[in-house]
Amino acid sequence: MNPDLVSSFPVSGQRFCVLYRLSGNDEEARAKARDICLEQTVEIPDALIPGGMIRDHILGRVERFEAGSDGGCTAEISYPAEIVGRELTQLLNVIFGNISIKPGIRVERLALPDEVLRPFKGPRFGRQGLREYLRVPDRPLLCTALKPLGLSAHGLADLAYQFAMGGIDIIKDDHGLADQGFADFHERVRLCAGAVERANRESGQRGIYVPNVTAPADVIRRRAGFAKEHGAGGLLIAPGLTGLDSMRCLAEDATLSLPIFSHPAFQGTYVVSREHGISHEVLFGQLPRLAGADATIYPSFGGRFSFTRAECQSIVRGTQMALGAVRAIFPCPGGGMNLERVPEMLDVYGRDVVLLIGGGLMAQGADLIENCRHFRTLIATKQG
Amino acid sequence: MNPDLVSSFPVSGQRFCVLYRLSGNDEEARAKARDICLEQTVEIPDALIPGGMIRDHILGRVERFEAGSDGGCTAEISYPAEIVGRELTQLLNVIFGNISIKPGIRVERLALPDEVLRPFKGPRFGRQGLREYLRVPDRPLLCTALKPLGLSAHGLADLAYQFAMGGIDIIKDDHGLADQGFADFHERVRLCAGAVERANRESGQRGIYVPNVTAPADVIRRRAGFAKEHGAGGLLIAPGLTGLDSMRCLAEDATLSLPIFSHPAFQGTYVVSREHGISHEVLFGQLPRLAGADATIYPSFGGRFSFTRAECQSIVRGTQMALGAVRAIFPCPGGGMNLERVPEMLDVYGRDVVLLIGGGLMAQGADLIENCRHFRTLIATKQG
Repeated sequence: MNPDLVSSFPVSGQRFCVLYRLSGNDEEARAKARDICLEQTVEIPDALIPGGMIRDHILGRVERFEAGSDGGCTAEISYPAEIVGRELTQLLNVIFGNISIKPGIRVERLALPDEVLRPFKGPRFGRQGLREYLRVPDRPLLCTALKPLGLSAHGLADLAYQFAMGGIDIIKDDHGLADQGFADFHERVRLCAGAVERANRESGQRGIYVPNVTAPADVIRRRAGFAKEHGAGGLLIAPGLTGLDSMRCLAEDATLSLPIFSHPAFQGTYVVSREHGISHEVLFGQLPRLAGADATIYPSFGGRFSFTRAECQSIVRGTQMALGAVRAIFPCPGGGMNLERVPEMLDVYGRDVVLLIGGGLMAQGADLIENCRHFRTLIATKQG
Repeated sequence: MNPDLVSSFPVSGQRFCVLYRLSGNDEEARAKARDICLEQTVEIPDALIPGGMIRDHILGRVERFEAGSDGGCTAEISYPAEIVGRELTQLLNVIFGNISIKPGIRVERLALPDEVLRPFKGPRFGRQGLREYLRVPDRPLLCTALKPLGLSAHGLADLAYQFAMGGIDIIKDDHGLADQGFADFHERVRLCAGAVERANRESGQRGIYVPNVTAPADVIRRRAGFAKEHGAGGLLIAPGLTGLDSMRCLAEDATLSLPIFSHPAFQGTYVVSREHGISHEVLFGQLPRLAGADATIYPSFGGRFSFTRAECQSIVRGTQMALGAVRAIFPCPGGGMNLERVPEMLDVYGRDVVLLIGGGLMAQGADLIENCRHFRTLIATKQG
């Protein structure tokens, strides 16, 4: 290849690292690591790589390789900061684009230097900001969901009112509420935001209504703007359905300036296997944080999903570990939680958590407001 | 629950079906099927579901259940068309949103009636339209990729010129080319589109340059517009990175009116396990088609990825099976193909295929134009 055609773009030399878990024995895993270096950068056979800048700098580099005790190996592979080009889509692509198609590779952790992090503002609120916004200085936050699908907008608003009267801080749409005829988005937002506002006036509390703005790509911003205008106090979005960068756009939009709640729908496949995909810590911790979520919803251990306690703790780690200037965010465990589980959840998660109980609040008894107050009391007792 | 709060929205009664493969024995799989019906719709325990419309209509329904010979079972589950609300994001959510987080569930096939399909225009060109656009009535189409990362825009344009002179129909960016300093998007598009245009003038052929517009959510449309304006002949996008609906927006945009090429980056995890995720047929066949791709790129059997021949054939099936008025699209197998493999690929894929050879064309010998002509000859020989 003509060396004049290789870019002379000045390179900083700064690299970022991805820790991969690789299945297979030592030799197989080493071959996998070398293959990742090619596949995620130049995507041509080694023999064709031009010398100079491309081979010395662009190509991925195995910085560390270790055989694990459990049969797999780990490899830390570095990539030049320049290939990200300041874009979240391309960062994801370098980390796990083509190699998502190869079995036995799992992204375990990201180590991102300032040069890679700088373009990403991260969450607008973060833990501290959300506490100030909700005026809840130190206790765990309470969250619930409006459901089931099939209720009218009036029915959902009636629930929202009761949740807010009972002292729930964050009253979110179920993620299945989109823009269906039986409870269309605009009517639902108007009525539910109005219901929560009324309850706040009556009770002196400060609950927020968080509508689901997971929507077609050309509609998300419009729905979010409508929600803001009509009194929503936050936005729910499922980045597995919209793309992670759509969440970043909402978070960075100063005209919205609303807390963002990330929902895990459609993302589960990445974490189901220990051999392949993306770790809980990265998928539900580091990535949503980088993409501007203020809270990351995931199914907690002990519910109707299968995450272990250790996996949930790794998510918490991802929400708060050092990540340049990117703020720490709230873990928001849910997925089949109920009031009986609150003490154990508080033991594991501590005070910096948003506890999400949906159906479990309804199942507790006929008086929904009373159930919510019970939820609040459990938190207060534990904290006191 | 107060029955007045259940929506009285008139329902059509039309339902769509998803065929799931469920792991476990008969009893476990039946329990999983019942659980899917709840999880993907009402998301509350069975005992809390209000009677009437919600239980009778909104709730998922097991229409058919079969024990498989290989240990797993299959269940056909139907959902009401109304809960999709005419949105691709919500369709994906109903099909596999929360249950993506539960192990042992794999989406095998979608059966979508007109009521669900109607809002989706699908590909603007499709197989026939792309053939007319490229003026290639019946032979397989030839595709290659501009790489490696680290070449300057001039270097990439130089390659593009040679590929076009050699008679490649579709010259696409490598999916790792985003907007990096060493070959920024705008300069790259101007130079590569110009180079292909010049080659077309000189050779009388009609190659197209297809830049990668996988980009931040708020930038995709702008890049696509710039590409159109500067002579690009198609658009490459990786829906695993941008969200599937971003591709639909590009396809439906009449001011662009360009063929769309779907790239599989970041989507691989869904198909890696036979126990969990989404089938090849759905992920690389039915879904990109529904979302407006005119060709679906995937790694072929026999290359550097691990898809089997049967899996590749299932993708082809997904590109052409009945799907309402949605056009058939081109399968575009690549991923480590080379000229030696062309005869076998033609045997398996027939004439309605876009053959993608990237690095393999460069590896063939020093004269790139000659290598491309050889590729064309192989096709012609086989066809003749």
